[in-house]
Amino acid sequence: MTTYVGSRVPRVDSVDKVTGHAIYGVDVALPGMLHGAVVRSPYPHARIVAIDTSAAEKAPGVKAVVTGKDFPHLFGAAIKDQPFLAIDRVRYVGDPVVAVAATSEREAQYARDLVRVEYEQLPAITDMRLALADDAPLVHPDMHTYERGGHEIIPHTNCNTLYRYQRGDVEAAFAEADLVVEGEYSAHAVSHVALEVHVAVAQYDQFSGDYTLWVTTDRPFFLRDDLAGGLGVDGSKVRLKVAQVGGSFGAKGVPIAEAIAAVLARNTDGRPVKVELTREECLIASQLRVPAIMKLKTGVNKDGFMIARSADVLWDSGAYTAYTVGVAIRGSQTIVGPYRIPNLRILSRQVYTNKAITGSYRGYGTTQVTWACESQMDEIARELGIDPVEFRLQNGYEEGDSYLNGQIMHGVGLRETIETARDEIGWGSVDRAPAPHLRRGKGIATMIKPTMTPSSSNVVINLGEDARVQVVCAAPEIGSGQDTVLAQMAADAVGVPLDDVSVPATDTALTPYNGPVASSRTTYHMGNAIVSAGNEIKGKILELAGKTFGVDPDYLEMRDGEIFDGEGELLVTLKNLLARYHGEGLSLTAGGRYTSAQSQLLKANPGEEWISSIFWMLCTQAAEIEVDTETGVIRVIKVAASADVGKAINPLTCEQQIEGGVVMGLSNGILEDFKISNGRIENGTLADYKVATIQDMPEIVPILVESVHNEAPFGAKGIGEPAAAATPPAIANALFDAVGIRITDLPITPEKVLAALSEKKEAEPGD
Amino acid sequence: MTTYVGSRVPRVDSVDKVTGHAIYGVDVALPGMLHGAVVRSPYPHARIVAIDTSAAEKAPGVKAVVTGKDFPHLFGAAIKDQPFLAIDRVRYVGDPVVAVAATSEREAQYARDLVRVEYEQLPAITDMRLALADDAPLVHPDMHTYERGGHEIIPHTNCNTLYRYQRGDVEAAFAEADLVVEGEYSAHAVSHVALEVHVAVAQYDQFSGDYTLWVTTDRPFFLRDDLAGGLGVDGSKVRLKVAQVGGSFGAKGVPIAEAIAAVLARNTDGRPVKVELTREECLIASQLRVPAIMKLKTGVNKDGFMIARSADVLWDSGAYTAYTVGVAIRGSQTIVGPYRIPNLRILSRQVYTNKAITGSYRGYGTTQVTWACESQMDEIARELGIDPVEFRLQNGYEEGDSYLNGQIMHGVGLRETIETARDEIGWGSVDRAPAPHLRRGKGIATMIKPTMTPSSSNVVINLGEDARVQVVCAAPEIGSGQDTVLAQMAADAVGVPLDDVSVPATDTALTPYNGPVASSRTTYHMGNAIVSAGNEIKGKILELAGKTFGVDPDYLEMRDGEIFDGEGELLVTLKNLLARYHGEGLSLTAGGRYTSAQSQLLKANPGEEWISSIFWMLCTQAAEIEVDTETGVIRVIKVAASADVGKAINPLTCEQQIEGGVVMGLSNGILEDFKISNGRIENGTLADYKVATIQDMPEIVPILVESVHNEAPFGAKGIGEPAAAATPPAIANALFDAVGIRITDLPITPEKVLAALSEKKEAEPGD
Repeated sequence: MTTYVGSRVPRVDSVDKVTGHAIYGVDVALPGMLHGAVVRSPYPHARIVAIDTSAAEKAPGVKAVVTGKDFPHLFGAAIKDQPFLAIDRVRYVGDPVVAVAATSEREAQYARDLVRVEYEQLPAITDMRLALADDAPLVHPDMHTYERGGHEIIPHTNCNTLYRYQRGDVEAAFAEADLVVEGEYSAHAVSHVALEVHVAVAQYDQFSGDYTLWVTTDRPFFLRDDLAGGLGVDGSKVRLKVAQVGGSFGAKGVPIAEAIAAVLARNTDGRPVKVELTREECLIASQLRVPAIMKLKTGVNKDGFMIARSADVLWDSGAYTAYTVGVAIRGSQTIVGPYRIPNLRILSRQVYTNKAITGSYRGYGTTQVTWACESQMDEIARELGIDPVEFRLQNGYEEGDSYLNGQIMHGVGLRETIETARDEIGWGSVDRAPAPHLRRGKGIATMIKPTMTPSSSNVVINLGEDARVQVVCAAPEIGSGQDTVLAQMAADAVGVPLDDVSVPATDTALTPYNGPVASSRTTYHMGNAIVSAGNEIKGKILELAGKTFGVDPDYLEMRDGEIFDGEGELLVTLKNLLARYHGEGLSLTAGGRYTSAQSQLLKANPGEEWISSIFWMLCTQAAEIEVDTETGVIRVIKVAASADVGKAINPLTCEQQIEGGVVMGLSNGILEDFKISNGRIENGTLADYKVATIQDMPEIVPILVESVHNEAPFGAKGIGEPAAAATPPAIANALFDAVGIRITDLPITPEKVLAALSEKKEAEPGD
Repeated sequence: MTTYVGSRVPRVDSVDKVTGHAIYGVDVALPGMLHGAVVRSPYPHARIVAIDTSAAEKAPGVKAVVTGKDFPHLFGAAIKDQPFLAIDRVRYVGDPVVAVAATSEREAQYARDLVRVEYEQLPAITDMRLALADDAPLVHPDMHTYERGGHEIIPHTNCNTLYRYQRGDVEAAFAEADLVVEGEYSAHAVSHVALEVHVAVAQYDQFSGDYTLWVTTDRPFFLRDDLAGGLGVDGSKVRLKVAQVGGSFGAKGVPIAEAIAAVLARNTDGRPVKVELTREECLIASQLRVPAIMKLKTGVNKDGFMIARSADVLWDSGAYTAYTVGVAIRGSQTIVGPYRIPNLRILSRQVYTNKAITGSYRGYGTTQVTWACESQMDEIARELGIDPVEFRLQNGYEEGDSYLNGQIMHGVGLRETIETARDEIGWGSVDRAPAPHLRRGKGIATMIKPTMTPSSSNVVINLGEDARVQVVCAAPEIGSGQDTVLAQMAADAVGVPLDDVSVPATDTALTPYNGPVASSRTTYHMGNAIVSAGNEIKGKILELAGKTFGVDPDYLEMRDGEIFDGEGELLVTLKNLLARYHGEGLSLTAGGRYTSAQSQLLKANPGEEWISSIFWMLCTQAAEIEVDTETGVIRVIKVAASADVGKAINPLTCEQQIEGGVVMGLSNGILEDFKISNGRIENGTLADYKVATIQDMPEIVPILVESVHNEAPFGAKGIGEPAAAATPPAIANALFDAVGIRITDLPITPEKVLAALSEKKEAEPGD
């Protein structure tokens, strides 16, 4: 019996945030704080011939001018390929070259503009299709010498990731198939556009050699290790204090402002340095979604069963790999979709180009591959003459099915997400548009995503003599409502009122290790750790109550701060129990830990266990749109988004996550579009780079499916990422439904719609 | 086998402190921080007729002007008798009346001087001898209505504490005694003169109602509760972050600057407010040692055995009780000294006076009563013609003796402290002074002190995946070296290198409950908690090592970061063991708790268990002095100070504690002397109030006696307080030895010495 879990509890951080009281990274200010500015490369690829910082050093207020020479260490998650500041060459327009710290932001910018860098331009590769050509210029000629993990590369090329997967006999199956559909789909670079820009404050202690950074990040321990790597120090020399995070969506994981702040702080005699990127810098020189070109071929039999699929995916990491290697590997697996397909072949390659860095973006590759998979699913269904919904239901995973590596899947509510989305959108009927040039249509798309596996979360729960509970963990609230959800689970696990639970801010010197707040893993992993520690605390309290009142603690139960006996009668309140021991300064502590590494659920074919996921995210969206055939403009009327959450710890925040995901999917599906010319982003401002606003909002109907996961806290799985992935293909499929055209390269802009309409008209003049 | 415990490890905080890098309370600066100033009472006792703040409110930069009317709640440890700002009357010269916050300290002080307070003077009581007279003006006419603990008061008088203790038949024993010695001794008010002044920064969150304070305190949770009491909020609404403490000695426990900062912060729309007292304010309006007048009567038989003692002690709390009630009760018990005396009677009374507040001062009453006890011991020995050393040894407690309440005493190294101090000073011989007007003498004094009992300490120890250990506890480093000692114990308990242990700063929102860093309790109590948690962590590590290498963990041992097998061969280093689990983000947590409440060692006569102490501090000092008979000036040549520390976790820091104690005892014994006239301190500056300087230093020889305590961590007891208590009587006894005069009222000033010499000459003209 739960008191808070399952309730639509208002967010615990809401008052602080709506009153402007919350301290975000941009709000951090320290005494004597300096401000940084960055000289960035104007060229996509060039050798640094000389740097003259003499004028900048003499400029008013300047305290430090730092170049890459002082920081020779490279960092990176899978390949250590990136310096904090360019050392001998720049690799994209925006690559940081020199950093300046001064007593004010204005002085720093003034001095920054006095730095003279002499470049020798090099041939640049800015198109990923050309990056693997024999004569392509190499972005990292020394790639083969870099320290890296176990994944495959193609040395002496731009290919920084090579991944192949095969199951069954794909060619034989294609030969047997009644229908083979092929297509090429592309997903473009988009920006996360978190409300808060990249910002960090760093301070260096010259005596201890310790760095302290005030940051806004979703993965404190990963970021700490990346920073330590780039600084060439042990991870324990870097301490991160995490402020409120003004949105991440995957963007706040690699050192960006943090790296610049740290190298400057190293040179300012202990004065803290703040580095706050402008919005323009965030757009052109932080990290973007990994662009992908996906060739997809699927064979089906005439009964509508999929029997073979091959995929050839090319990913563009930009100038450095950051977190993209995982995207290219894990993401490419998901191009199979949530479907049983016996014969599979996947080839995934990722290339360096002389463009802005790419990386994690809500879904870690899933938004890209879902675009290809779900577009093609629609094509196949239409060619077969099967209803797209029925086609998906017929091929979709059910509880107990085997995943592609043989893992027996658990907690699979796919069918219910498809059926509920279908029903909510009124599948099968189309509303009449209000004018002849407006056409309406409906489309559906679904998706699957694994979570980072194995991974671990640790928590320390303290119950003080004041009966208040602290949930000490390194899981920064990134805006997704998880402080609330973690507090709800802690309140029920311990058995105290929600108001008595607090989740202090992350400080890597005080909060135990946690994996990233990413991959929608927090509720599940940290929740399990919290339940474990919370139950231990509750057990200690009941033992104390038993001892105090001379009753067997096994018959006692605590809920919402009240302790009940075997008959359900109130024995004592927690506060009154603790008050009896006031003089003893009672304080209870329990450490909780969950790691998926040991779970039996991960069993799979030998050698393929690493492909297993401790849980699966499944989300189906049905969209109704209206397209203006004169302008090509698409208006999304309604999106029914149904997600399998396992168990909604807080239905309200689950719905908000889904709504946010749909808005993001809509925005990157039909609006966001970088204009890039020779590696230079030409519309790097929010005036020119269009993100969805309130005017673009459709009616969004979130639907929560609860296929309880039996190793999860209260049954709950992740919810953060799925909703963003299915929206663009649902819209594209609705567009086909409305006017019979298919756009395969994102975004679905009015220009492309008009061009396709015109092409279709030419092809079918009698229409 | 220990690696660090027992070693003269340099202090872990030394580099930070000698380089000026440590952040003390005075260094705390926050963005937008305001500064406070305080209007104080010019009268010892007056009614507040009217307060006009209008001019101050209009002064430049002023953001808040606050009077006591807004904060009607009273606080106090044993009697809630004190407001944050005077409400309707002022009770001492310096009593805070109005607080002002402005954008700079100068503006705050300017505005402060514009406040007009109209007073109606009331009769004041400034002499504690007169405070119990029938017609004495009452400092707190409503005392009987105040909330208080269980101790006795005399309603409608100035007596805020009445305590009686009796054992045996004192009058009968006096009648039987061969010798009865009576005397009156007095100990004066002295200031702690911590290097750092009283300072606090407070911030108030108007939305949550939470207060956050950056403070410099020795007792975070007690201070938190006092602040909450005065603010009229629950303790959980007040969060204290503790900066480095620039000395406390008992002074940094009650809300002083903290109270003013908090009431101002309540009124500044969220801006933080810093309140930093001047040195003069610290001297006249913080808290001083409790003055005491002690009538002491002792009966002995001719063999030199003490058979009866009666004591009548009068204590002066000043205007409010703060922590003095405990001083008056626990302190008065210790006037028995470390001696077996079968018949006892103690009467202890404490009175309010219209003078500055008094309270805890290194030893909590012990410096006062030891002065009386050890002066009289010398008188008795001389009258009996017994060597003062032998007299003490003959009557002194031995291991297994009963304390006055029947508690069987454990860890009693008194004899060895007396013998080692005696030997070191060269007892029995006197060096010849270099001139005829200079006379030399030797004196000895010993002492006993209980520790706060029962009390509790909690700790959370985390071991991260980087093999570093955090010792999370609310035990601020007050300059005594305890961060080092706690880290040493943690390093040995877990089995890791000392360099890998850190003790993060106290934050009441993150660090579990601890009693105060007072009563010399930290090493013993927190040490026990650390050993418990540290061993649990070690056990978990050995279990992991056992599992990893397929060996029985019971045969493994970890020391200094290395894990050894049953044959003592290195199996693996901790870092390498953890590296194998890097991907799993291993983090181990253990909570440790020690409470003396349940110890069997506390057993005593029924109803008297509360007098028991979990350990006893024992320290003997022998002094050699030289007195100038022409000027009365005493030069202390050498002090041999021998303390029973149970086990010296760090002999270096133990010796430093002893040295510091001797300096403090010397300073308050012969130098420090407030000139007080009608309740007004007239020499409230360090130019006029003389504390010991380097020129006053004797040779100090610290001696460590180790009578291991079997319930203690590694055997260690407390060491912080004892050394300050025995120095003044050792000097006084040496003075008698040198020139045959006895000063009974502290301090032993040259004026008193000259007067006594002159009186002696008159009495013995033939001398």
